[in-house]
Amino acid sequence: SVNPDLASERQTASFSVERLTALLDGGAEQTRIRRAVVEAIESDPVFSRENQYFQTQNERYEAAVRKAVHLQKKMHEMGWTENGPEYKYIYRALSGDVAFLLHRVFMRSISVLGSDKQIAKWIPLATQHKLIGSYAQTELGHGTYLQGLETTAVFDTATQEFILNTPKISAMKWWPGDMGRSATHTVVFAQLYIHGKCYGIHPFIVQIRSLQDHSLCPGITAGDIGPKMNFEHIDNGYLLLKNVRIPRENMLSKFCEVQPDGTYVRQGSQKINYFTMTTVRISLISDEVLTPLMKACTIAVRYSVVRRQSKLRPGEQEAKILDYQTQQEKLLPQLAAAYAFHFVNNYLQELFDRGYREIQRKNFDMLPELHALSSCFKAMITQHCTAGVEICVQACGGHGYSLLSGLPSLYTKIFASCIYEGENTILLLQTARFLIKCFMAASAGQPVPPSVTYLAAVKSGKCPAKNKLDFLSPDIYTEAYQHVAVRLTSNTAAKLQDLIQSGVKKHDAWNQCTVQLVQAAKAHCHYIAVKNFAETVEKLKTKAGIQKIMKHLCDLFALHGIFSNTGAFLHDGYTSAAQMDMVTASYLDLLAVIRKDAVPLVDAFDFTDKSLNSALGSADGQVYQRLYEWAQKSPTNQMSPAYERYLKPLLHNTLSKL
Amino acid sequence: SVNPDLASERQTASFSVERLTALLDGGAEQTRIRRAVVEAIESDPVFSRENQYFQTQNERYEAAVRKAVHLQKKMHEMGWTENGPEYKYIYRALSGDVAFLLHRVFMRSISVLGSDKQIAKWIPLATQHKLIGSYAQTELGHGTYLQGLETTAVFDTATQEFILNTPKISAMKWWPGDMGRSATHTVVFAQLYIHGKCYGIHPFIVQIRSLQDHSLCPGITAGDIGPKMNFEHIDNGYLLLKNVRIPRENMLSKFCEVQPDGTYVRQGSQKINYFTMTTVRISLISDEVLTPLMKACTIAVRYSVVRRQSKLRPGEQEAKILDYQTQQEKLLPQLAAAYAFHFVNNYLQELFDRGYREIQRKNFDMLPELHALSSCFKAMITQHCTAGVEICVQACGGHGYSLLSGLPSLYTKIFASCIYEGENTILLLQTARFLIKCFMAASAGQPVPPSVTYLAAVKSGKCPAKNKLDFLSPDIYTEAYQHVAVRLTSNTAAKLQDLIQSGVKKHDAWNQCTVQLVQAAKAHCHYIAVKNFAETVEKLKTKAGIQKIMKHLCDLFALHGIFSNTGAFLHDGYTSAAQMDMVTASYLDLLAVIRKDAVPLVDAFDFTDKSLNSALGSADGQVYQRLYEWAQKSPTNQMSPAYERYLKPLLHNTLSKL
Repeated sequence: SVNPDLASERQTASFSVERLTALLDGGAEQTRIRRAVVEAIESDPVFSRENQYFQTQNERYEAAVRKAVHLQKKMHEMGWTENGPEYKYIYRALSGDVAFLLHRVFMRSISVLGSDKQIAKWIPLATQHKLIGSYAQTELGHGTYLQGLETTAVFDTATQEFILNTPKISAMKWWPGDMGRSATHTVVFAQLYIHGKCYGIHPFIVQIRSLQDHSLCPGITAGDIGPKMNFEHIDNGYLLLKNVRIPRENMLSKFCEVQPDGTYVRQGSQKINYFTMTTVRISLISDEVLTPLMKACTIAVRYSVVRRQSKLRPGEQEAKILDYQTQQEKLLPQLAAAYAFHFVNNYLQELFDRGYREIQRKNFDMLPELHALSSCFKAMITQHCTAGVEICVQACGGHGYSLLSGLPSLYTKIFASCIYEGENTILLLQTARFLIKCFMAASAGQPVPPSVTYLAAVKSGKCPAKNKLDFLSPDIYTEAYQHVAVRLTSNTAAKLQDLIQSGVKKHDAWNQCTVQLVQAAKAHCHYIAVKNFAETVEKLKTKAGIQKIMKHLCDLFALHGIFSNTGAFLHDGYTSAAQMDMVTASYLDLLAVIRKDAVPLVDAFDFTDKSLNSALGSADGQVYQRLYEWAQKSPTNQMSPAYERYLKPLLHNTLSKL
Repeated sequence: SVNPDLASERQTASFSVERLTALLDGGAEQTRIRRAVVEAIESDPVFSRENQYFQTQNERYEAAVRKAVHLQKKMHEMGWTENGPEYKYIYRALSGDVAFLLHRVFMRSISVLGSDKQIAKWIPLATQHKLIGSYAQTELGHGTYLQGLETTAVFDTATQEFILNTPKISAMKWWPGDMGRSATHTVVFAQLYIHGKCYGIHPFIVQIRSLQDHSLCPGITAGDIGPKMNFEHIDNGYLLLKNVRIPRENMLSKFCEVQPDGTYVRQGSQKINYFTMTTVRISLISDEVLTPLMKACTIAVRYSVVRRQSKLRPGEQEAKILDYQTQQEKLLPQLAAAYAFHFVNNYLQELFDRGYREIQRKNFDMLPELHALSSCFKAMITQHCTAGVEICVQACGGHGYSLLSGLPSLYTKIFASCIYEGENTILLLQTARFLIKCFMAASAGQPVPPSVTYLAAVKSGKCPAKNKLDFLSPDIYTEAYQHVAVRLTSNTAAKLQDLIQSGVKKHDAWNQCTVQLVQAAKAHCHYIAVKNFAETVEKLKTKAGIQKIMKHLCDLFALHGIFSNTGAFLHDGYTSAAQMDMVTASYLDLLAVIRKDAVPLVDAFDFTDKSLNSALGSADGQVYQRLYEWAQKSPTNQMSPAYERYLKPLLHNTLSKL
């Protein structure tokens, strides 16, 4: 039976939840396929996550390996293939709780960086799991700055081998997934030396464990890096190489080859390779970043209509906590952001598909823009979603703090997305570099890529809004965001030039501007996200009910951004104080409007109870019963040796004899 | 040997680290006592936290009980008493990793709420650990709003007993520490019924487990609530009461008594009791909130001078990451906040000591102000410090994400401080209610408490700063903070009145202002924190070196608050855009100045390596060696059954037969 406090929320939905779900999925047929995959995975007990919150890191790892192996069988049974329509839903259905993700990266790196001969040799072995691959790039002392990697690969002409070494402890490979305990092979990135000359970083296939008994190969020291904030199911590993010899053929040689006599040959263009790196950042957004935020919103919103606390009006029963403005102000902007970023993700996917087609035709013109967009959106979305999940945890009070709520593990996992695949600050600075360059070009009348043409239009106007309703006009707020992005970019470009002209060296000047450059990159990204949301809403004309609620969410997303960052809009007087008060009024009004549809809006994300894995967020709202039942199963309710060892002697007064 | 990159940072300290440590401790003698306690605790292997990051929740609980029992012995050995000067350092030296904290709350509640007879009976039993106590207030469905608690205690005149019941699942006690597995007794808060009439919430001593064999008493269902984001060492419990009978004497009756015939008698003033509740909020700040931020700063700052990443200038070696402006902007404001809040904490302690003396003299005038200050500072400090620790984790990249860095567990623990002892939003609204009341009183020319007299002085002036150096004047920035606090309070008071005058009911109007009321309360608190820091610096005249660096930190704390919240200062034109650019310039300049003393400033917190328990933050800066050594000891480097069960069959190609 559904908790009546939750049931009542569904009766007043202003739109069709099923139609919104289909919109999010990209069509009703996609919804059908997704649900079939979820049903197949969730009905299979091998994939159960029921005991996840009670398991140790060792148990989590073992379960992830079990699931990965079973998944091969399952795909065969179900007739799912890697190119089929079901494939993209499998990982989401497993909530990512599966091993061998790096095995896939191993395969992709060979496909992208290997010669045809190498691909023909290794890909079938990997596909059939005759080996388990990993990808060893990051070192203990080196992350983002690849040129700084210290692992060496010295070519030995005599034996036609590379000799790999970890020259010092900071050069030890550290973090590669699947490497700590599972992998038999890995792609090692190392500084290539031929006849004493360094040719920079190159990738090498290295076997690290025996295919017979899994023992470490000669010269290999490897293991697991230990406990982490999350990702207990992944065996992130370390690797130390001591005079490990591999044949010349094991250097991935699509772009560079070492010939038998030691001649180094460069071939082809690596540009498509950089593009691949860029797309990885975008591809992780959906499963690793948006899904956790959507889950957290679902849990927190459902809990907030079931939980009653204090009285809103004297004499009435205790109020649903979602009826408090402060609770709305915590959760509803996160819900709006989840939708906003879902649509940004669609926009990026389309852009990258187009980019890919252009690149196939040897047109690399879009690359700098794609790199800049993937960098800043990866940073912006991971940061906003991580903060959003955190707010959801806090908004559920004590129960949110229990692992059984499902929220802490969503948080500790999404937290890592701000660091991996490019640390966010560094990514934002890369985008900022692009912005400054484009701004200078645009100022000089030169052509710039489409997403930054707006930088040329430095306007000094004022926001034309006359009353609070004007701030529900996308033109008004999009224009305001654009104005701020231009101002921050142009001001920082000016500061940079001033510093250089006053004699500060170029690199020092850049460093002295980086805090402001980060602000400019964020503003650029925020502007595009708002504009894209507004344009998406515009296109929903045939779906009146959905368009209306999406319009509210778009307005909320935009006004929340202004309300949370008023200084940027007030600074040069583009927005006046009176207008800012209108923004605040419209923003607070919207909270009360969207609150009415809050449950239908999270229902549309269409998560099953099993995928939420939360005592607070289940579709029936039976929160307290579920917390109690679940807690009783906790290993902490087994007998502890602490009683016999410590409590009994204490209570029987051994101490009082002191 | 100390990593040279760390050693060089200490050679250029602009002040005496030892003298700053003494200042933080409140004198060199206090430093000596604290160090002696730390030494005694850390040299005792029973108190070791070495394997903490590898332990399960069950192991953590067992260790905490072991430590709690051993601590009794240790205190006896060392001659430490609960009233001695060492006592306050014990918990900090143990990093709070010890059981029976709720046993102390049990004792305090009896001391405060019990009659002399009850105190005489129970306190000696508790002191001698002939029982283990807990404190059962929060219920599954009820937290902050005490009147909503549902547990019942019905007085039975015939047997002179109270009959306690959990009428429904939401009434189950949930969260009490030490109750899940350890406690034999607890103080249960329940609705008192006599002859069918409800007299509201009262406290009752209830035995829940046998003193002989620890089995649950008749009518009691109790256990552990399971896994949490942290606090694995504490057995937070649940409790379900079914017709549990306790003698009439077990109702704590200092303020209210039920006589044998069922007559209910109120006696004395409970005001001192409310004061006790208020002081708990302040007393937790030091150990639970400031210490974790100070530890996180120590770890992150030391790591940031040892970690080198990318080149700041071409041709040079890779730069220390603390030399990047963006890294300084992440960490140094947290460091400044740690100092700012340390001094706020001193201020609050003094204020509460004074309040206590007044209350002893039956003068309760200070109570509303003390309640308002304890509420908003608890909320402000927990929120800032939690965010600060989070920034420290993020700022250490991948290594920060490893539990071995020590940072994740600092974060997941401090996170709870935003929820317990009063959820922050609710506390801020309580302060806001006080502010609005005082503002109205002040506007009407009535006297108001000292901390809010400034509300009477609504000035419409402008910030007088003329250049960026003016913003290093405490008068200038303190005045700006004051102006913002007055504006937010007065504007929200006006909105509230407008709504009520336009016909909105009082409670609805209040709810519609709560987002802005929270802003006002935060601004009030921030103003007092800035003012207090400036006044503290002023008093350091005899300590020139220390005063200078503290002045820099005070400026940074103040300007960071403006830089992060420019809209509040720009809104009504008190600060102009040109002045805001000066703030930014001074703020960024300060980062580079304070960066030079960053390591000495964290060294002054005087944490030992054992207390940091971090592979990144040790005093010798040997980060990589320590991470590697530590990871090798992880249980994830033991043989896993996953190989024989899943990997071997996979690699030996069972699957390829599919």
